Amino acid sequence: MTLELVSSARVFAGEQRIYRHQSAETGTMMRFSAFVPAQAAAGPVPVLWFLSGLTCTEENFTVKAGAQRVASELGLVVIAPDTSPRGEGVAGDPAGSWDFGLGAGFYVDATQAPFDRHYRMRSYVERELPALVGARLPVDMTRQGICGHSMGGHGALTIALRNPGRFRSVSAFAPIVAPSQVPWGEKAFGGYLGAERAAWRAHDACALIEDGARVGELLVDQGLADPFLATQLRPELLEAACARAGIALTLRRQAGFDHSYYFIASFIEDHLRWHAARMG
Amino acid sequence: MTLELVSSARVFAGEQRIYRHQSAETGTMMRFSAFVPAQAAAGPVPVLWFLSGLTCTEENFTVKAGAQRVASELGLVVIAPDTSPRGEGVAGDPAGSWDFGLGAGFYVDATQAPFDRHYRMRSYVERELPALVGARLPVDMTRQGICGHSMGGHGALTIALRNPGRFRSVSAFAPIVAPSQVPWGEKAFGGYLGAERAAWRAHDACALIEDGARVGELLVDQGLADPFLATQLRPELLEAACARAGIALTLRRQAGFDHSYYFIASFIEDHLRWHAARMG
Repeated sequence: MTLELVSSARVFAGEQRIYRHQSAETGTMMRFSAFVPAQAAAGPVPVLWFLSGLTCTEENFTVKAGAQRVASELGLVVIAPDTSPRGEGVAGDPAGSWDFGLGAGFYVDATQAPFDRHYRMRSYVERELPALVGARLPVDMTRQGICGHSMGGHGALTIALRNPGRFRSVSAFAPIVAPSQVPWGEKAFGGYLGAERAAWRAHDACALIEDGARVGELLVDQGLADPFLATQLRPELLEAACARAGIALTLRRQAGFDHSYYFIASFIEDHLRWHAARMG
Repeated sequence: MTLELVSSARVFAGEQRIYRHQSAETGTMMRFSAFVPAQAAAGPVPVLWFLSGLTCTEENFTVKAGAQRVASELGLVVIAPDTSPRGEGVAGDPAGSWDFGLGAGFYVDATQAPFDRHYRMRSYVERELPALVGARLPVDMTRQGICGHSMGGHGALTIALRNPGRFRSVSAFAPIVAPSQVPWGEKAFGGYLGAERAAWRAHDACALIEDGARVGELLVDQGLADPFLATQLRPELLEAACARAGIALTLRRQAGFDHSYYFIASFIEDHLRWHAARMG
C-alpha cells in the first residue's frame, strides 16, 4: 500500500498531514487528513476518526474545526477521510445537486449502477482505511473513537453500531440519525442502494438500534438554530430509540447554534475530552 | 452608510457576522467579518483589527484561525477586512498571478492607472472602515488593537506607525517588514505606486521607523519553516530597525512553523491575550 504524503504543517505541538493513496475499494485516489501529536513520537497513541458531512472533503474539518489544539494537548491522532470518491469516471448526481454523488457518499457501498463502481465508502471507511492507518501511522488500534457531523454523524453512529467493541467512544454533531425517514437519506439510499427499504436498515442508526445493535453510550450535540433540525436530523428519533434500548445518550440541545463548523468549533473540545477520557 | 448583514452564526458565546457595504473609497461592494462577543450586549468593547495576507478574503482568518474561542472569553470584537477591491471592472494582475491585484491590495492607495480607480485599500482600512465600524458596531474606538499576517502584517505595522496613538497594541504574524526591499513589495509598489521609490517609504514599516515613526512595542511571531522567510519577510530588518529606534520588539522565532493558518492558529491565543492586556 503506497501512502503518499501530500503536505505536512506544524500546528501546536503536532503535525497536520494530508495523505493520498490508491483505494482498492473505490478504485480512485483518496485523500485523508491526519493530525499526529508530539506524543506519538514516544509510541502509538489513541486515534479518533472524524467523518464529515455533505459537500465536505478531508479539508473542511481539518482547517475549520480547530481540533488540533486540544488533540495536541491530549495526544490524539485525528483522522478525517474524504466523503466520496472523486476524479475522472466517478459518476455524480445527474442533476448536479450537492446532496448526492460527489461529496455525498453517505458511508454506504452502492449496489446500484452506475454508483456501485466507485461509491464504496462504507468498506473504505470501515475496513480499508483503518487497515492502512493502523499499519502506517503511530496509532493504537485498541484505542479508537469515532465522531462525525451531519452525514458524517450518521456514518459514525452506524459504523459504531455495526462494529460492537471496536470503538471505545462514539459522538456526533448534528447527525442524520434516521436517514430512512428523511429526504437526504431517502434520496441517497434510493440512489445508492435501490428502492428496497429493507437494505437500508443496516445504514440507519435508529433502525440498527431497533434491530438490536448497541453501543454503550453516545454524546450528541445539536444546534437549535440548525436549519435542518426538523426536516433532516430529528434527534428526537435517536432519543426515543436509545431510551427504548437502554443506550446512555447524552443529547445536548445547544441554543443559537446552526449547522456550520462554527458550531463544531464551539464544542469540539468537549468531544475530544470526552473521547480521550474513554480511549484512555 | 448601508451596512448589510450577509450572515451570522453563533460561535462560542458570541456571533460571527459577515457584512457587506458599498465603499466610497474603492467604489466597490466590500465585505468584512466581525466577531461580536456576548460582552458587547452590555456596552462597547475593545476592537482588534486583523489584516490578512495575499490571496485572502475576509473569510480565511475568520474560518481558519480559531480566534473566536479566546475573543469570546476576553470580550473582543475582531474585524477582518477583505484584502482588495473585487468585482466587475476591477483590474487584476495582467499576468493573472496571485501576488498582485485581486487579493493583493497591499493596503496602499494606488496612484497608477488602471489600479488608481479601485485600489484604495489604505484609505479603506485606515479611515472608511473604522468610521463605519465605530458608528455601527458595539466597539470602544478608544481601545483598538491591530494585527495582521504576511501582507496584512505589513498593513498592521504601517497603519500603526502612521497613526501614533490610535492603537493600544500592535502585533503581526510573519509580516512583510520591508516591502521596498523584497520581490512581493517591489512588484506591488511598482504596480500601484509607480517607479519612484520615495513614494514607497510611507508604506514600508522599516522605512517608516527609519524616518522617525514610532510605536511603543510590537509582538511578532515568525515561523522558521516559512518558505518566504529569507526572501520576502526578513524579520531581521525589523529587528535592526527597532533596535536602532528603541522600539520594544518581541520577535519570536517559532521552530517548525510555516506560513499557513496552522501557524496563526497555534499562536493566535497569545496575540489575543497580549492585545487584550493592552486594550484594557
